[in-house]
Amino acid sequence: MTGKLFVIGTGPGNPDQMTPEALRAVEASTEFFGYFPYIDRLNLRPDQIKVASDNREELNRAQAALERAAAGGNVCVVSGGDPGVFAMAAAVCEAIDAGPETWKTVDLVVVPGVTAMLAVAARIGAPLGHDFCAISLSDNLKPWEIIEKRLRMVSEAGLVIALYNPISKARPWQLGRAFEILREVLPAETPVIFGRAAGRPDERMLVMPIGEAEAERADMATCVVIGSPETRVIARPSLPALVYTPRFLKDASR
Amino acid sequence: MTGKLFVIGTGPGNPDQMTPEALRAVEASTEFFGYFPYIDRLNLRPDQIKVASDNREELNRAQAALERAAAGGNVCVVSGGDPGVFAMAAAVCEAIDAGPETWKTVDLVVVPGVTAMLAVAARIGAPLGHDFCAISLSDNLKPWEIIEKRLRMVSEAGLVIALYNPISKARPWQLGRAFEILREVLPAETPVIFGRAAGRPDERMLVMPIGEAEAERADMATCVVIGSPETRVIARPSLPALVYTPRFLKDASR
Repeated sequence: MTGKLFVIGTGPGNPDQMTPEALRAVEASTEFFGYFPYIDRLNLRPDQIKVASDNREELNRAQAALERAAAGGNVCVVSGGDPGVFAMAAAVCEAIDAGPETWKTVDLVVVPGVTAMLAVAARIGAPLGHDFCAISLSDNLKPWEIIEKRLRMVSEAGLVIALYNPISKARPWQLGRAFEILREVLPAETPVIFGRAAGRPDERMLVMPIGEAEAERADMATCVVIGSPETRVIARPSLPALVYTPRFLKDASR
Repeated sequence: MTGKLFVIGTGPGNPDQMTPEALRAVEASTEFFGYFPYIDRLNLRPDQIKVASDNREELNRAQAALERAAAGGNVCVVSGGDPGVFAMAAAVCEAIDAGPETWKTVDLVVVPGVTAMLAVAARIGAPLGHDFCAISLSDNLKPWEIIEKRLRMVSEAGLVIALYNPISKARPWQLGRAFEILREVLPAETPVIFGRAAGRPDERMLVMPIGEAEAERADMATCVVIGSPETRVIARPSLPALVYTPRFLKDASR
């Protein structure tokens, strides 16, 4: 008899941004697989087992979780944010695709969540109010040339860009290079949002024009959102500025 | 004294997919502005006032809500899904940008939610596991030529595409035309997901290759997700197929 495999996201880190559906999946599970800072966000009972691992061992972790679920366990794989966006749901599917036939019979339940770009956008206004994309800046899993090509094409297409995994100790120069490429396409005043730890106590939101954007403003907890030429900043007298992308394109109202 | 303006999303429609943060915003508000099917998803108290309106009156609705908040009310603007994705947060920002100075002093709180593409992705596997974009197919607010150009560029760039507002009585041919364009770029076997009412009792998930995709499979409650050339389908013996986009690009592992 196979068990159940939940794949959940904790949301951006604020417990109030995790859905009741995700909390119920946590209650129903007895074994938890995930990167330890995400697992540590959960209030687990003493009978619930944590199997924490490093954040670069995603496929091994997915395989271990599937093995336990195939053996009858009620297992929960834990991501930050939404599990389907640059996170564990894809790793679990990869493992099922390449794994033994029994893994295809496991009852898999992916529970959606609030992904980082949505949390950042909410805290600053509505920068994702029009067409947008999400691109991971990590070149661990794809060639850097592909990332450069995509950045050029989506900025030329006029999409707002949310960059996941913008920078890390092992990838120190990629975000700066991304800004260089985008400066070739976008007006210098295009707003860039450095959205760090949105919704958490150590949240820090920073807006600057792309002409002045510095990669050092980002860290591993930052989602960087780059506006389109339509994106606007509203200065407010006693409150932080709002950044939004109008629902309409100017050409459409001609 | 100005009041407070919450802008929330109900999530995809399943009450279990609405965050505690959004529920608290509902509790704290006394007046609700929104498209009536979204407002009807909320369990309101008798003292809470509903001001429902048609779904094409977004700017008027935002202005009415801002007026009430500027006059001291605790007001809630209600979207489906996430309020920042093709929804009311941008309309509220537009209204603030063009409105009287006092509107800039209103305490604006945008509460993020689970947007449709994340709910659809979760129900089918992990199609958004790699770079992706969200494009509204409505040509009410932007010229159709821009939409065609964007579809070509993002599919050539290798992004998975989530189409919002794919079809309506007033826009019957646009989705079919979008499939035609995408068939010029993508392999005929690229999976297309018609994700209708994900997470709700009337949910219907349908997967077919883009070579055979028919626009009639979508309605106004559908989010259409189009894979990239990397997106894969896993057939399972006794369960629905899974669709996912691997975290890595094949070229990267060479």
